[in-house]
Amino acid sequence: MSSTTADASTTGTTVITNIASLVTNDPSLGDGSPLGLIRDAAVVIDGDRIAWTGESREAPATDNRIDAAGRAVIPGFVDSHSHLVFAGDRTQEFNARMSGRAYSAGGIRTTVAATRAASDEELERNLTRYLDEALRQGTTTLETKSGYGLTVEDEARALRIASAHTDEVTYLGAHIVSPDHADDPAGYVALVTGEMLDACAPYARWIDVFCEKGAFDGDQARAILTAGRAKGLHPRVHANQLTYGPGVRLAVELDAASADHCTHLTDADVDALASGATVATLLPGAEFSTRAQWPDARRLLDAGVTVALSTDCNPGSSFTSSVPFCIALAVRDMGMTPDEAVWSATAGGARALRRTDVGRLTPGAYADLALLDAPSHVHLAYRPGVPLVRRVWRRGVRVV
Amino acid sequence: MSSTTADASTTGTTVITNIASLVTNDPSLGDGSPLGLIRDAAVVIDGDRIAWTGESREAPATDNRIDAAGRAVIPGFVDSHSHLVFAGDRTQEFNARMSGRAYSAGGIRTTVAATRAASDEELERNLTRYLDEALRQGTTTLETKSGYGLTVEDEARALRIASAHTDEVTYLGAHIVSPDHADDPAGYVALVTGEMLDACAPYARWIDVFCEKGAFDGDQARAILTAGRAKGLHPRVHANQLTYGPGVRLAVELDAASADHCTHLTDADVDALASGATVATLLPGAEFSTRAQWPDARRLLDAGVTVALSTDCNPGSSFTSSVPFCIALAVRDMGMTPDEAVWSATAGGARALRRTDVGRLTPGAYADLALLDAPSHVHLAYRPGVPLVRRVWRRGVRVV
Repeated sequence: MSSTTADASTTGTTVITNIASLVTNDPSLGDGSPLGLIRDAAVVIDGDRIAWTGESREAPATDNRIDAAGRAVIPGFVDSHSHLVFAGDRTQEFNARMSGRAYSAGGIRTTVAATRAASDEELERNLTRYLDEALRQGTTTLETKSGYGLTVEDEARALRIASAHTDEVTYLGAHIVSPDHADDPAGYVALVTGEMLDACAPYARWIDVFCEKGAFDGDQARAILTAGRAKGLHPRVHANQLTYGPGVRLAVELDAASADHCTHLTDADVDALASGATVATLLPGAEFSTRAQWPDARRLLDAGVTVALSTDCNPGSSFTSSVPFCIALAVRDMGMTPDEAVWSATAGGARALRRTDVGRLTPGAYADLALLDAPSHVHLAYRPGVPLVRRVWRRGVRVV
Repeated sequence: MSSTTADASTTGTTVITNIASLVTNDPSLGDGSPLGLIRDAAVVIDGDRIAWTGESREAPATDNRIDAAGRAVIPGFVDSHSHLVFAGDRTQEFNARMSGRAYSAGGIRTTVAATRAASDEELERNLTRYLDEALRQGTTTLETKSGYGLTVEDEARALRIASAHTDEVTYLGAHIVSPDHADDPAGYVALVTGEMLDACAPYARWIDVFCEKGAFDGDQARAILTAGRAKGLHPRVHANQLTYGPGVRLAVELDAASADHCTHLTDADVDALASGATVATLLPGAEFSTRAQWPDARRLLDAGVTVALSTDCNPGSSFTSSVPFCIALAVRDMGMTPDEAVWSATAGGARALRRTDVGRLTPGAYADLALLDAPSHVHLAYRPGVPLVRRVWRRGVRVV
C-alpha cells in the first residue's frame, strides 16, 4: 500500500509503551479472550516485525521509545474486500436513490464505461488515493479487485495496476456479464475462463465471481472458479448478497477463502460455513448505503462460523473506506459485540485472506498497528463516526 | 471554541477559489434550492466575516488566494445539542449493553458522581478535547450544557467552564432529579428554579429541561422554563425522546428555540411544531447507540417543520462528536435527502440557536467553513464514516 507520510528514519528496535489496552488477537496472551487483550501493555517493533508484546513493566530494552500515553493499540485493519480500480462519478445516482427520485442508473455498467475510458494514470491515481485514505483510517492490508473492465485488456490492466500497490489482488472478470456479451453469457464465461484468465492470472492471487441472480449462476460460478484454480488462483465468492442461492455452499465446497456478503442464508448455508474453512465476510457498508437487510452476524458466530468484516469500498453500493464505521454498524445492527467486531476486522480479515502474518500483534507478525485516540478498542463502536485512528505503523514504519 | 492548529498569520482578504460546489444556504443564490448551491464557486473572507460568494470567474481581487482544487465547501456545522462538561468513563456500560450482558449501570448518575469528583482542570481539559475533536470534523459552532452537577456549585461550575469556550451555553440543572433529592422532587425543582438558577444564569444563554417519564413532567418543566425565562434565559426542551409526552407542545407554547429528540410524536405534536418557530432538533446518534427507534424526519419536513441535526455528544447515550455521521444516519434511516440533512446540520442548527450569523455563507456571516475532500456535500452521506473534512476556517482563521 502507499503511504501518506513515510517516516523510515527510525533504526533499531522501538518499544511503544504505556498502552492502556493492547489487542494482540493471540488468546494465549493477556486476558485469554480471543482478542488476547493485555492491559498496561507494551509492544516492541524490530524492523518490519513485532518482536515482543507483554506488560509494560516487563518490556525489554530497545533503541527507541514511544509513549502511547494511556491509549489503545490494535492490529492494523485487514480489509479483505474492496473494488478500488475504477473511474467515474456516481454521486448523482446515490443522491437520487437516497432522495427517492427516479434516475436511470446504469449500476456497475456506468463504472465499467468510465473505467474503460480512463487512462492508466487516472486509474492508478484513484487507487492510491483510496489506499492512502484507508491507511489513514488504520487499514494496513487491503485486498482489491478488477471487475470494471470486463475485456481481456481492461481486466489485465486493472490487475496490473492493483498489483503494483497491494499483494492481495483478485481477478473478478466475473463481476457481471460484460455488456459486450449481453446476448451471449456462455461466450463471456468462456472468455473469463480462457483468454481473460490467461492475461490476468500473472497479476492476481485470487479469483472471485458474483454468484447471484442477474450475474452468474452456480454452474457458471463453479466453472469460473475451477478454471481459476487450475491457473493457481485461489477462489473467493460474492455469495448470497441479494437473494438466497448456491454461492455460499459452492464456496465451501471449493474451499474458497471467503464467501462475501452472506446476507441471505439458509440453515444449510450456515451449516456449510461452520463445517469448512471458508470465512463469512460481512460487508455492512453495502447494506447501509442501499438500505438493505443486515446480515445476521450473531447467527453465524453462534454456529461457530469465522466472520470477517470489510468495507466493500466501491462507488456504487458502499463508498466507505472506513473499517471503524463497519465495526460500529456490526455492533449496532448485526448482533456482534465490540470485541467480536474488532476481531473480525483484524484477525477475521486475515483469515479471509489466509494470512497469519497480519491481523495479530505477536512475535513474527508484521508490525502493522494502529494507535487509537481512545483508551480501548471498544471506543471504535462507542464513538461511531469519530476518526479515532491517531497513528498507524505499517511494516514497522510509521505512515500516519 | 478551541483550535488545534491556529493559523492567524494571514492578513487582508482571502479568496477560496475553484470550489466545485459551494453550499451557501441562501436560496437566492446559485441553483435557488434551500442550499443555494453555487457550482464552480469562490468565497471571499475579510477578517472574521464572509465578504462575497459567487461564481469563480466573477470573484473580486483579494490579497490571498487558496485553490480548493475542485473540492466542495460548506458552512461549518452548527451542533446545537451536546453534553460535554463531564468526567468519568462509561465504556464498560456501553460494552455490556451492546454485548447483551447484564451491567448495573447508573446511567446519568454515574457521570454525575464522576463529574462532581473531578477538578475544574479535568473538566476543562475534557471539554476542550471534545471541542477540538468536533472542530477537526467541521463543527464551528457548538452548544453545550450543564446537567452532570445537579448541585448549585457543580452546575454553576460546569457553566462557568463551558462559557469560557463557547457562547452557546445551556443550563440543564433539570437533567434528572438530583440523587440527593430522590425523595423530594418538588424540593429539587425549587432548587433548580431558585438558588441554582441564580447561580447559573450569569453563565448561560439557554435553559433546558428533560421533560420525560422518570425525569420532569409537563408541570415541572413549565415551572422550570418559565423561571429561567424570567432570569433572561431562553427555553429549549429535551422532548419526546423515550415516550410520548407534553414536551414538544410545551416547547412550542413557550416559544422554545428547539424541541430536541422528537422521536415519539403525535399528529398534534407535529402540527404544533409546524405552527410555531420552535425547531425540531433530531439526534440520531442517540438512537444509534441505544438501538432505539429512529425519529421520522420525513414526517416533520413534509409537515413544514424546521429540522436541525445534532450529535447529542455525551458519554452515556451518544458518544459521537461527528456531525457527518449524523448526516449519514439521517439520510439512511430518517428519510432525509442528502441536501436536507446538510441544511439541517448547518442552517438548521443555526435556527435552533436563533442565530443568523452562522450556518450560512453569505456576506456578513461569520467566515466559518469546511473544505471537504470531496467534490460535493452529498459525499457526507455517500461516503459514511470517512473523515472528509480536510480544512476548517472559524471566524476567518484556518484552524484545521
